[in-house]
Amino acid sequence: MLSDQHEMNFFGGTLRLHPSFERTVMKAIQLKNMTCLKYMQVKMPEPAENEVLLQISHCALCRTDAKMWKMGQRDLRLPRILGHEICGVSTESGRRFVVWPGRSCKKCEPCRNGFENLCKSMQILGFHADGGLAEYVAVPKESLIPIPEKLPGDIACLAEPLACTINAMVSSQVLLGDKALVFGAGPVGLLTCLALKVHGSTPYIIDIEPDRCAQTQQFQDKLGIRCATVFDARDFDVCINAAPSLDTFVKGLDYLKDCGKFCLFSGFDRNDMLSASSLNEIHYRQLKIFGAYGCTRIQMENAIGILVKYQKAVRLLIERHIRLKDVPAILPQILESKTMKFIVKF
Amino acid sequence: MLSDQHEMNFFGGTLRLHPSFERTVMKAIQLKNMTCLKYMQVKMPEPAENEVLLQISHCALCRTDAKMWKMGQRDLRLPRILGHEICGVSTESGRRFVVWPGRSCKKCEPCRNGFENLCKSMQILGFHADGGLAEYVAVPKESLIPIPEKLPGDIACLAEPLACTINAMVSSQVLLGDKALVFGAGPVGLLTCLALKVHGSTPYIIDIEPDRCAQTQQFQDKLGIRCATVFDARDFDVCINAAPSLDTFVKGLDYLKDCGKFCLFSGFDRNDMLSASSLNEIHYRQLKIFGAYGCTRIQMENAIGILVKYQKAVRLLIERHIRLKDVPAILPQILESKTMKFIVKF
Repeated sequence: MLSDQHEMNFFGGTLRLHPSFERTVMKAIQLKNMTCLKYMQVKMPEPAENEVLLQISHCALCRTDAKMWKMGQRDLRLPRILGHEICGVSTESGRRFVVWPGRSCKKCEPCRNGFENLCKSMQILGFHADGGLAEYVAVPKESLIPIPEKLPGDIACLAEPLACTINAMVSSQVLLGDKALVFGAGPVGLLTCLALKVHGSTPYIIDIEPDRCAQTQQFQDKLGIRCATVFDARDFDVCINAAPSLDTFVKGLDYLKDCGKFCLFSGFDRNDMLSASSLNEIHYRQLKIFGAYGCTRIQMENAIGILVKYQKAVRLLIERHIRLKDVPAILPQILESKTMKFIVKF
Repeated sequence: MLSDQHEMNFFGGTLRLHPSFERTVMKAIQLKNMTCLKYMQVKMPEPAENEVLLQISHCALCRTDAKMWKMGQRDLRLPRILGHEICGVSTESGRRFVVWPGRSCKKCEPCRNGFENLCKSMQILGFHADGGLAEYVAVPKESLIPIPEKLPGDIACLAEPLACTINAMVSSQVLLGDKALVFGAGPVGLLTCLALKVHGSTPYIIDIEPDRCAQTQQFQDKLGIRCATVFDARDFDVCINAAPSLDTFVKGLDYLKDCGKFCLFSGFDRNDMLSASSLNEIHYRQLKIFGAYGCTRIQMENAIGILVKYQKAVRLLIERHIRLKDVPAILPQILESKTMKFIVKF
């Protein structure tokens, strides 16, 4: 049983845990209806069997959170506590973890084939189930991924987006030595470059805004990534879109060599229309298009390893630490794709 | 030197060759301008160095020929003698050959990577250069693929479309045991099923016209292919379109299991428009799209092997033998996608 103020080892010092059994309410960011996001007091989550109550230490904000608030998302069920890039401390063991945000059935065909991220009855934290923009979250024990002591929580919570970029890279059959172009010099685009670099391919990054390239020059220099607003056409083995504009698809096909690979990593705005002649390029030049969505547990474990090694570079992608109550004011900025990573620190 | 009437072995007897050196003109089907197709007398082709003059015995008509006449095609240069599914006799050796219709540079990146069908300076017979709807054609010696005596010329000339279906299958990473759905129960769709069958995957075929399925029941029965106008959604590992409607793409994605493969084998009508939400299916369900165009020499050699073994079944796909001068009257029927294979017999 936990004492009133339970102390445990924590990176950079000790963390005082509120003993969860004494609490009935907590602070959270809840999306009640589309565009109606509230910082409010909610009931404490009650862990089911095989679940554990995690006290959140850090939760990173993602453009998908902003998109949910403004436009909805295929997997969003309302009302919902958002947040799926989570780092916290188990109220049972006191150990620190990041969380694979899915809950998969292990029985359907995608699960059996190792694609738990595509589980037929998938439940995602912050999408179908309440997520990490709260003081506590209830998570399946098997979704916990331990993190080493030397990895700070604000970096560790980026394991989820980094794992998604690993999934994009694996799904699109990127090979050692491939010349890869990433669309969108935001945090996800830059994490994609990191994954490509670690994999042994050569990452380039493109953004329509010249300012966007300049914003993270130090990160690019550290990893040897070239960022520009234009590159030579038909010069890349791989293109990966980390931006939701359909233009990334049309231009991406043009940037590919014959037999090149396009990874459809970011979904597109629904109302955009594409001409069949773009698809004919796929036919005539034997291009390949690969979809990628989410990540698996093992990809998150791999991401933790990369973050340990590259934490100094990755820290350059953090724009600011914010408080939970600041989230509603920050989301519109994230939606505009002009910021780097905001981390909610509890 | 050839005698005045040179005799040589030929399937089913002997063929009397007109000695080419004495002829200055020949009959041909020439596309002069869009929609203006003429049966006419033209100058005999003059083989360049490393080329040989082939006397055509059979040339199959393809929907692409009809499309060129009516709508043009990316690789078409006018005026042009059409025809790229060619079987004939070398006026040098008297041996029978089918012809790989490409001329590739062997130096560009696709050529060096084994994708000679995507050669940067590709010249295709019946597209960029004069083809086989004529009494004679000049072809590079290295494009000749010998055919065994037991294979009749009207079947052998189908090596080219069959090789294109093999290329589609290889390009789209079809695996042994994959459940594959082919869109369009025309001759190319049915040859695709044959290629899939030989490869060890399980072919199904779909056509919006119930009559189309009934037309080749005997072929389907021989190969154990099921044809219908509708199947269960999300039940196929692979979809391959052998029909130019954009609808095959949208429906195809829906027929695929998660992580399924769509082969964009037929190009789409240029003016069709697609909504981005169809592409989002690729993203969310990690679908894969593979382009396929043309074929390689070795795929044509493989096709010859398959045709030898399955010639009785393949004969069921031949609608009729026609004369060269009948071609202009036949093309509109082919464009309507209601016929099977027409073979010009010389």
